[in-house]
Amino acid sequence: MPPKPETAAHVLLPWADLDARHGPWPSGVRVQVWDGLTPEDRLPPDVLESTDLWVMPYAVPGVERLLPRLPSLRAVQSLSAGVEKLLPWIPEGVSLHNGRGLHDASTAEHALGLILAAQRELPRWAADQRAGRWEPHFTRSLADCRVAVVGYGSIGQALERRLLACEAEVLRVARRARPEEDVHPVDELPRLLPRVDVVVLVLPETPATQGLFGKEELAALPDGALVVNVGRGRTLETEALLAEVRTGRLRAALDVTDPEPLPGGHPLRQQPGVLVTPHVAGGSAAFRPRAERLIVEQVRRYAAGTPLVNAVPLS
Amino acid sequence: MPPKPETAAHVLLPWADLDARHGPWPSGVRVQVWDGLTPEDRLPPDVLESTDLWVMPYAVPGVERLLPRLPSLRAVQSLSAGVEKLLPWIPEGVSLHNGRGLHDASTAEHALGLILAAQRELPRWAADQRAGRWEPHFTRSLADCRVAVVGYGSIGQALERRLLACEAEVLRVARRARPEEDVHPVDELPRLLPRVDVVVLVLPETPATQGLFGKEELAALPDGALVVNVGRGRTLETEALLAEVRTGRLRAALDVTDPEPLPGGHPLRQQPGVLVTPHVAGGSAAFRPRAERLIVEQVRRYAAGTPLVNAVPLS
Repeated sequence: MPPKPETAAHVLLPWADLDARHGPWPSGVRVQVWDGLTPEDRLPPDVLESTDLWVMPYAVPGVERLLPRLPSLRAVQSLSAGVEKLLPWIPEGVSLHNGRGLHDASTAEHALGLILAAQRELPRWAADQRAGRWEPHFTRSLADCRVAVVGYGSIGQALERRLLACEAEVLRVARRARPEEDVHPVDELPRLLPRVDVVVLVLPETPATQGLFGKEELAALPDGALVVNVGRGRTLETEALLAEVRTGRLRAALDVTDPEPLPGGHPLRQQPGVLVTPHVAGGSAAFRPRAERLIVEQVRRYAAGTPLVNAVPLS
Repeated sequence: MPPKPETAAHVLLPWADLDARHGPWPSGVRVQVWDGLTPEDRLPPDVLESTDLWVMPYAVPGVERLLPRLPSLRAVQSLSAGVEKLLPWIPEGVSLHNGRGLHDASTAEHALGLILAAQRELPRWAADQRAGRWEPHFTRSLADCRVAVVGYGSIGQALERRLLACEAEVLRVARRARPEEDVHPVDELPRLLPRVDVVVLVLPETPATQGLFGKEELAALPDGALVVNVGRGRTLETEALLAEVRTGRLRAALDVTDPEPLPGGHPLRQQPGVLVTPHVAGGSAAFRPRAERLIVEQVRRYAAGTPLVNAVPLS
């Protein structure tokens, strides 16, 4: 966190008019807007020169190219929960803040939607609707299921609240054991998974999580189990998953994939028992009001010289 | 509720081996099984003659034909929540018991699945998956939505718990006002609906609920609102709904329809913005364990001469 700037705070935001919805900016705050889509050369040179707090446009690929062009920069706010791809771009002496919490509601409800769609066979009914069929049959439920939430951070906790309301049982798993919160370490997965009906991966991508859920973990799941990924595609081994869904032994619902985007001809696309959405878990109407509240809080903190929240440890 | 029978209780159940899972039957209870699919003429004549408590097979059309053939009958347990079609079949002096509560978890989670599928555009993503597209965009959310639950019985309450966990706001509506529970009467719908993002019908079919949600109520909803029906098809006017979804002004997710089954060529089937499932909200794995627990309780009560639960008022 940078010290309170001597001069005015020069803030570059992705959206205009936040003050109209959230009250006036503190005195001394000067706001400029860049949506990440307009060519950055249209920004006045003195904006690039003076920006000391930049809130990056959300989900616009490549905006990090602006970072080397901001000589006064002190802090960068990303609106993503996972900022692994940004790390190499952060200049010396600049603090990085992530979007922890902004995506909890959106991502948790998308994960819940994927689970319910798979358990209650919504894709099948939608196909039957169009095909003129009316052939009801009993389906699985979410109620009474045991769900392992792998990655028990703020999104995992938001998902847990939803799962408990659906009368499911939740098994908390994270990289490291937190016995005081009843969180099991991932090392215990081979022992835990045989008793699980649904496993949901909510992991960031780090060297330690890449391929974390692979052949051994998949093999430990009971027949018919559902594998859900709303974290990062590379935490789940695609080839190992394909082998299990091809035999029909496991099912999957994936919002993130490896590779991503999933190529048009990828076998996951036509595989029965697999539902894929294009990395949209965090991208719903639930995001914007929460993101705006965080931006306003960070700007007020910056202007007041108090530490910004959601700082990412930088080595 | 019948008095305690003088002789043994002769019970006809849809499933075998409940005692293996739930403990032995009380002494004096004699159990026979009829699944509703086997021709009833294969039942020994003395079973028809002696049955005094019948638990009807679930979701098997036409099984009520057995009712006139059970001369000793004292109580009928249906496993459905709505028993309107049974009423004309119940012989004088026989008590009727419904499946209130058995479908709460299953129906509420299906309603939640329909809402999430519609808000988060799961049918579109499933189609994109097969078509080779990867074109993410922002969607609606359930979080922050105001949801009117019309029919605030045990299923409505189970749905409310799930909606609240999803950070939605719930407006309780029932046929009659219950101010002590903050339940609005349906008469207030025209005033309430303009502020609602989602309306969920969870109504039984009675003369008072037929066509309850029609042109006027639909017109009162704001643009883009979602209409969900998991109660009975005839409580929602199909033609009025079709007019609104055809213009794209409203969206719908229906587990029950009028007519039902929905004919193969019905316009709701191909209508964009409409998701139909074939009356499967109550039919999931969540049902069986709850139904078995109710059956066991009712048989024990019957054998002990204590009143059965879930009695339906008969005129």
